[in-house]
Amino acid sequence: MIRYQLLRQDGEARRGRLETPHGTLETPVFMPVGTAATVKTLSPDELTGLGAGIILGNTYHLYLRPGHERIARLGGLHRFMSWQGALLTDSGGFQVFSLGEGKGGEEGAGKGSLVKIVEEGVEFRSHLDGGKHFLSPERAVEIQEALGADVIMAFDECPPSLADRAYHERSLARTQRWLLRCRDAWTEAEARKADEGPQARTPCALFGIAQGGLFPDLRRRAIEEAAALELPGYALGGYAVGEEPEQMWEGVARDAPLLPAGKPRYLMGVGTPEDLLAGIAAGVDMFDCVLPTRCARNGLLFTSRGRLTIRNARYADDPRPPDPACGCYTCRNFSRAYLRHLFRAGELLGLRLNTLHNVHHYLTLMAEARAAIEAGRFAAFRQERLAAWRSGPE
Amino acid sequence: MIRYQLLRQDGEARRGRLETPHGTLETPVFMPVGTAATVKTLSPDELTGLGAGIILGNTYHLYLRPGHERIARLGGLHRFMSWQGALLTDSGGFQVFSLGEGKGGEEGAGKGSLVKIVEEGVEFRSHLDGGKHFLSPERAVEIQEALGADVIMAFDECPPSLADRAYHERSLARTQRWLLRCRDAWTEAEARKADEGPQARTPCALFGIAQGGLFPDLRRRAIEEAAALELPGYALGGYAVGEEPEQMWEGVARDAPLLPAGKPRYLMGVGTPEDLLAGIAAGVDMFDCVLPTRCARNGLLFTSRGRLTIRNARYADDPRPPDPACGCYTCRNFSRAYLRHLFRAGELLGLRLNTLHNVHHYLTLMAEARAAIEAGRFAAFRQERLAAWRSGPE
Ligand SMILES: [Zn+2]
Ligand SMILES: [Zn+2]
Repeated sequence: MIRYQLLRQDGEARRGRLETPHGTLETPVFMPVGTAATVKTLSPDELTGLGAGIILGNTYHLYLRPGHERIARLGGLHRFMSWQGALLTDSGGFQVFSLGEGKGGEEGAGKGSLVKIVEEGVEFRSHLDGGKHFLSPERAVEIQEALGADVIMAFDECPPSLADRAYHERSLARTQRWLLRCRDAWTEAEARKADEGPQARTPCALFGIAQGGLFPDLRRRAIEEAAALELPGYALGGYAVGEEPEQMWEGVARDAPLLPAGKPRYLMGVGTPEDLLAGIAAGVDMFDCVLPTRCARNGLLFTSRGRLTIRNARYADDPRPPDPACGCYTCRNFSRAYLRHLFRAGELLGLRLNTLHNVHHYLTLMAEARAAIEAGRFAAFRQERLAAWRSGPE
Repeated sequence: MIRYQLLRQDGEARRGRLETPHGTLETPVFMPVGTAATVKTLSPDELTGLGAGIILGNTYHLYLRPGHERIARLGGLHRFMSWQGALLTDSGGFQVFSLGEGKGGEEGAGKGSLVKIVEEGVEFRSHLDGGKHFLSPERAVEIQEALGADVIMAFDECPPSLADRAYHERSLARTQRWLLRCRDAWTEAEARKADEGPQARTPCALFGIAQGGLFPDLRRRAIEEAAALELPGYALGGYAVGEEPEQMWEGVARDAPLLPAGKPRYLMGVGTPEDLLAGIAAGVDMFDCVLPTRCARNGLLFTSRGRLTIRNARYADDPRPPDPACGCYTCRNFSRAYLRHLFRAGELLGLRLNTLHNVHHYLTLMAEARAAIEAGRFAAFRQERLAAWRSGPE
């Protein structure tokens, strides 16, 4: 299954190693997001070349299209997308609940809502064709087991950070009950798989998720209850869902150290380069976010001197690479002028070269953070980086 | 500049070698089209990996955006797009005349036409912003010299094949006058460049273009007049512009052998795999076409057993590669089911993997054609291929 080893600590920051059935990951690690069985614009060999050891797939999207049963028939998600590295799938809950955002959702909510939450699970309508579907803890585990990722996630509700305490309490209690059901479904599925013998498919490691919004006591209780289940890993959910960055940093700094020290700690859906450094400082080991890939497709590049908007007219004749300090394929071969041209012309190569650069930037940042922890100078490293990003690109 | 060497002849089919300032090309050669300074979806290193030695840029598009002067300031088209191989640019004429298609065009044509042809050149409106522009033989050469391709093309009018004889005669006479002006402008530009000394930019080799529609006597006259100018190479224009494939094959079979034997022969804008084999059989050395790249983006794959439409429902669970006989990255790593999924999900990686395969198919076909000519069995090779393509994919 998976095995986490803590190699070195620097303050709360952790330098670790996570063994998976598909390779060993050096942590802290960033996981590029491959929503629909592809990290948008990039091929698996490019991801490997960039040093990505693990990527994320979205259960909600894969369940709807092309369908988890189809992927299972075709040999599982690794084989389907020809990815040799490790894979993590989310539970689908986050996307499903996002469908209902701002439209109520709990039982009794107004008609026309896309999402209906009951104790058993969640009813929702596909964003693709409006068809009705039902997701429950058992179903989310079943789908993820069919996809066959190395790490699968518990099915939880992720309420907006700024929802009121009463809602958070009610939601959290249900999420904790769902966690037990996920654990049971997963234990059973893994036992069945083990019975298949040596030809068995990849074992899937279930991570628990602690919610609780911005309420320290709710977070603590969620973590303690989840930790008691002794799952292979733990995640903080419900951050970067509406609160200010400072609120998130404060919350993560408080919560992450409460997670079991002997297990990998994953901060879900976070974030900006600044967020990653804050998370690492708090002792987080794993991150995922659509930001580097989505921003790339919008022409926003992360550089060693902060953000650069490639479509700006000031770059029309700029022969310099996006980031002279970057060693990625894009920066080694292409000018800002060329990338601006591609972006304006709507050329797909532009989206891809931007994505390559941004993912490289994120993965390099993580590698440098790991080195800084090893050298016992993560706090200084973090300050240096924040200062450089504030300076702005030349 | 460039130097062509005929290595072997098999019937009219020619196996040759074309030295350029950016590498030596084995002919017959296919040139992928990089309209806006990018072969859509592919990076330069992928093109090199596919064995592409020369690609085509479109003067019309590059002139409008990002502008030839900008590209010149940034070091020329090779450097701008980071392409180490050879480059050929068209004159812009074909695109400009396409703007006016079906709307008349010659002096006196109705109001509202996007294109106005006079002896001096062509006035047209940009498809991007409607702005007025003027292209002439001298201007087309000037723009192409600024882009700095290894091969540049004469500015000609390319009338629809099926226009009447009177129009073809009038158009051809003007195109022949324009060819002289191109030759003069080019001679002057190259002389100026030579004066710049050893730091001089890449010399550009001008190819003449013979028009004449489907009229054998017009074609013959156009070729003879052009040949008398002793240009570095010659092209047949005005094919694949409305006539039936059989009419084109017949015309090319008749015209290509009339082109000077000691110079490279280029059949512009052609075509399907079937067309390429017909052209090679007629003694053509160079081809370009948007077909492999454009079809790829529409989900049409060329395989060793003919065309495959990847979005078809029958491929939803098909674990086989698009073409089991193909050795490209796409076929080595991905199933029809996965490519269909990417296409349906609108994923850019799908367009790219399709493009990789199609360009690989075209370039491999050319390599095999070269080998067949060397072995003196091109006619048999052609029949085998045509039969296999007719069989249809399994
Ligand atoms: Zn870079
Ligand atoms: Zn292939």
